[in-house]
Amino acid sequence: MAPRRQQEIFQATLGLLAEKGYEGLTVEGVADRSGVNKTTIYRWWPSKAALLAAALVEADTLAVEAPDTGSLRGDLEALVRGIAALLTRPPAADVAVAALGAAVHHPELAETARRFFADRLAREEQIFERARRRGELREDADPMLIMDLLGGAVWLRTVFRGLPLDDGFAAEAVRTVLDGSAPA
Amino acid sequence: MAPRRQQEIFQATLGLLAEKGYEGLTVEGVADRSGVNKTTIYRWWPSKAALLAAALVEADTLAVEAPDTGSLRGDLEALVRGIAALLTRPPAADVAVAALGAAVHHPELAETARRFFADRLAREEQIFERARRRGELREDADPMLIMDLLGGAVWLRTVFRGLPLDDGFAAEAVRTVLDGSAPA
Repeated sequence: MAPRRQQEIFQATLGLLAEKGYEGLTVEGVADRSGVNKTTIYRWWPSKAALLAAALVEADTLAVEAPDTGSLRGDLEALVRGIAALLTRPPAADVAVAALGAAVHHPELAETARRFFADRLAREEQIFERARRRGELREDADPMLIMDLLGGAVWLRTVFRGLPLDDGFAAEAVRTVLDGSAPA
Repeated sequence: MAPRRQQEIFQATLGLLAEKGYEGLTVEGVADRSGVNKTTIYRWWPSKAALLAAALVEADTLAVEAPDTGSLRGDLEALVRGIAALLTRPPAADVAVAALGAAVHHPELAETARRFFADRLAREEQIFERARRRGELREDADPMLIMDLLGGAVWLRTVFRGLPLDDGFAAEAVRTVLDGSAPA
């Protein structure tokens, strides 16, 4: 399938998810909105869950370029700002919140969530590889833990507490995981 | 109302939420299950959202004692283990995941989520107060940020990634926010 057509299907999928939730998302609805035949969609993605997984991982709207600012601190701050934008700015925010809310409610989406986060981490690994080579990271530091601390904090602050992120949030969060909170 | 009776109402509320979701939770259902008259429940809590908010903040099942181990490190590790237990061990896990999933989907619950996390933070403040007096915390360290990093990481790892927490998780997460990840 042509990449452009694929992106149209993904757009339709994520749009329907954001508007109607996972319950309201159907392959038929995606076919209607994207103008692609239902049978064609099923040939590529055998189920609604498979289609959603592909859309979440491959859609341009949710793509986050792994930053390369020259320092681990700069890269992590850019990542935190990227995650914050994803969780707070429409339309991506509606998609992200609907997708993660659905993952909590529908056990059949657990694999989708796993795949999404594994894909993100694989892209982020290069940031930590470069940091190790530059001597910016403790040898035993765990990239998944660092990303869970930073990504989880953005989620908890914006979605659960419903608080805005001030300008200093990214720098302060990254400072905490890199330099700690104990007195120097 | 007698505290014990109140706890029975809260138990019924949280049980119905975990079983049927927020949509399936009704004051009528709570009245049936707790054996308390519907009008009495309404006299105390004017809406289903108000009842749920009270249950989340005041129910014994979700109560987390603020630990006092003698060190900030020990206190934070105990808190992380407490949050992990809450998010992974039934029946509290079903309640917590249902409540937070509902908060994402129902804007009218935003205030409930805010109140829940504000109440938690107020209880945790004493940990940070003691740490400051003992000189274990940088003057400008932000307790809400530290709790968002730690709590968010537990949530992301267990609920979104669906991965188990190994024995070292609490110590490693707390080590990262206290000592950082940069080489010594």
